[in-house]
Amino acid sequence: MLAEIIAVGSEMLTPHRQDTNSLFLTAGLNDLGVEVGFKTIVGDNPRHLIEAIHNALRRADILILSGGLGPTEDDLTRECVAESLHLDLHTDADAVLALQARFRARRMEMPPNNLKQAQVLEGAEILPNPNGSAPGQWLETVIRTADAQTHRRLVILLPGPPKEMKAIFAAQVQPRLEQLLPPRFLARRILRMALIPESSVDARTAPIYRRFTDVETTILAGHGEIQLHFLCTKDTQEQAEDRVDQLAELIEHEMGDDIFSSDGESLEEIVLLMLGLRGLSLATAESCTGGMLAERLTAIPNASRNFLGGAIVYSNDLKVSICKVPAKLIQQKGAVSPEVARALAEGIRERTKAAIGISITGIAGPAIPDGPDSGKPVGLVYIGLADAEDTQVKQFIILGDRDRVRLWATMHALEMLRHTLQ
Amino acid sequence: MLAEIIAVGSEMLTPHRQDTNSLFLTAGLNDLGVEVGFKTIVGDNPRHLIEAIHNALRRADILILSGGLGPTEDDLTRECVAESLHLDLHTDADAVLALQARFRARRMEMPPNNLKQAQVLEGAEILPNPNGSAPGQWLETVIRTADAQTHRRLVILLPGPPKEMKAIFAAQVQPRLEQLLPPRFLARRILRMALIPESSVDARTAPIYRRFTDVETTILAGHGEIQLHFLCTKDTQEQAEDRVDQLAELIEHEMGDDIFSSDGESLEEIVLLMLGLRGLSLATAESCTGGMLAERLTAIPNASRNFLGGAIVYSNDLKVSICKVPAKLIQQKGAVSPEVARALAEGIRERTKAAIGISITGIAGPAIPDGPDSGKPVGLVYIGLADAEDTQVKQFIILGDRDRVRLWATMHALEMLRHTLQ
Repeated sequence: MLAEIIAVGSEMLTPHRQDTNSLFLTAGLNDLGVEVGFKTIVGDNPRHLIEAIHNALRRADILILSGGLGPTEDDLTRECVAESLHLDLHTDADAVLALQARFRARRMEMPPNNLKQAQVLEGAEILPNPNGSAPGQWLETVIRTADAQTHRRLVILLPGPPKEMKAIFAAQVQPRLEQLLPPRFLARRILRMALIPESSVDARTAPIYRRFTDVETTILAGHGEIQLHFLCTKDTQEQAEDRVDQLAELIEHEMGDDIFSSDGESLEEIVLLMLGLRGLSLATAESCTGGMLAERLTAIPNASRNFLGGAIVYSNDLKVSICKVPAKLIQQKGAVSPEVARALAEGIRERTKAAIGISITGIAGPAIPDGPDSGKPVGLVYIGLADAEDTQVKQFIILGDRDRVRLWATMHALEMLRHTLQ
Repeated sequence: MLAEIIAVGSEMLTPHRQDTNSLFLTAGLNDLGVEVGFKTIVGDNPRHLIEAIHNALRRADILILSGGLGPTEDDLTRECVAESLHLDLHTDADAVLALQARFRARRMEMPPNNLKQAQVLEGAEILPNPNGSAPGQWLETVIRTADAQTHRRLVILLPGPPKEMKAIFAAQVQPRLEQLLPPRFLARRILRMALIPESSVDARTAPIYRRFTDVETTILAGHGEIQLHFLCTKDTQEQAEDRVDQLAELIEHEMGDDIFSSDGESLEEIVLLMLGLRGLSLATAESCTGGMLAERLTAIPNASRNFLGGAIVYSNDLKVSICKVPAKLIQQKGAVSPEVARALAEGIRERTKAAIGISITGIAGPAIPDGPDSGKPVGLVYIGLADAEDTQVKQFIILGDRDRVRLWATMHALEMLRHTLQ
């Protein structure tokens, strides 16, 4: 079963806006066994839109259009689908009532323009929109191609705003598609790894996942992370789950401890979970990352159960006054040194009475000529981790710009925490 | 002049990857006076790709294809363009030498596959790729449409990886297009505002910008910010700049102090700039934002000139021990209270000897039933700002989820800093 998606709206032909609806729609369609063969972005131009609809109907079983269902003159999706399929549009009484109720609830007069949104394609079903004024439409129809053959086609009109589109797809489109399509049992798993090159993950895992021709494997890389996505469809849910589990187990065996989560949790979540299980508290002392490590941890709800807080010791004075690093040590070794990383980790642990203190000091760049760290390369980072037993310090050289050095440094810190807590 | 963009690659028909190249290409084309009329995303499917090329060549003067220039069997852009235009492909000797040199420099044997990348369309110019193995191609050609008319067409092939595509576009495509197209003088301005609803910005500014029919105005909203983009084209650079300046001045007059930057700088940059001009230092004490404010400031190079650092006082103990908030005050008023915000700002200022201390304490959510703050609503945030003269505390109610409350709280803090420094 093949689908096409047409995103309608001139704003998506500017440098500022992008069609993101199709990612959500593609995920939903793939889950039902439908592949997406083509995506088109068209402006509010009836000639272009009609041409795009014609092309899509020739090629695909299912056509989803998102956008162009608003009340203005620019919103032409309804009209263009009607013209492409030689169908009439009629005003749907229930849709008018729904629109009037919506405006009444907001104590607003309905502008006459909005009546346009109650225009329905001949033979189409209305898909009510709980989050906006434009209802979607569901149309099962038959087309005749140039070779005089007839083909069944499903045409779905959805509003452009993601919140409206998603709600209608989930509540109205997905269940109808499930009815229409053969039943399908599907299992998924996501394995996540940090700080390993994509090529090395692929080299080690490809010999395994290639043997599982019935499992679709996707490798995604970004933000210092590699994700392996598995997807399998079988005749029963159990069979699908089994196959994905078998593959995941073999990959876990190969990659071992490099895998930080096998159920989709983020690295921050895993670290907080481990702290929770072991009943340990954590504090941070950050120099070059300027609070990013703490920010990442506190983005997780209930981080406060195990994360106490910490210090951003951007200036050397604060390294001394908050984390009690000896001023002389900074003078002798430099702020970016294993000795200062150690003193920061131990200092913040002592100051906060946390079970674990972790520190990051490094050179995020850009390089400052004749600066205090001018002898040291951009990307040089030291991370210290102090607990009740001892303090470890690791050195990293991170390639890339300021943003990358900072992000990677926090990834390394989280990975050090994870390994220590294991 | 009308362009179309075709992004080639099956990965962009999955839920995981998206064509982002077209945003960059659209910006570059618009600068040269070329509009984008259609964008298509096609998989590695020769039938689909040839159809997309045919459709595009019928409609557009310029066709840019990105992707599908790699060395594998799936990379079919060259072949499909050749077939669509009935052109031969030949192996370009210089391109072969460039490929061989590239592999030699990496001390690698060139796989025979890669020779494919030296295949050039009859009549096309090679666009060397400094960042990868696939060169681009520039082809000026003539097509004949069904009505027997002939049309000049420009077809540009670019590699898919953004770093490679961008470098070739900037160094090779843009200058050639400038030669080809009528000269064009273009001025741009970006006005940025924080924390104002888009509808209110539009209501206040539309009566002004609508009178400037020769300036294209775009309103972009996101991450607590509103941007007004102005773009004007005239016969001379001076005329274009003048028109944009006139409009910007009127809008600045209307929006006044709400505009934090009129040359594109971020709010963090503006705050650091103002601190620098006034020779003042800053320290932060963050509770619910967990380091996000410091992280945003330190993302800017050379933040260390005026930002000293600060504390993440997630636990109440740290509020007491680092920022010297009286434990009794927290007990009596709660950690999320104007009194504690004041004590935190004054405490961090004193501890760090900064000229300005700023604090954020609030309830980021999700709500914890029977938690210490259970009587207070999610989104309640207090921000304290202490300087040599006095301490101000403001209350905010921020709607939305944890991420939004945290982000908006840092925006409010930056805005308070900006207003105080003015």
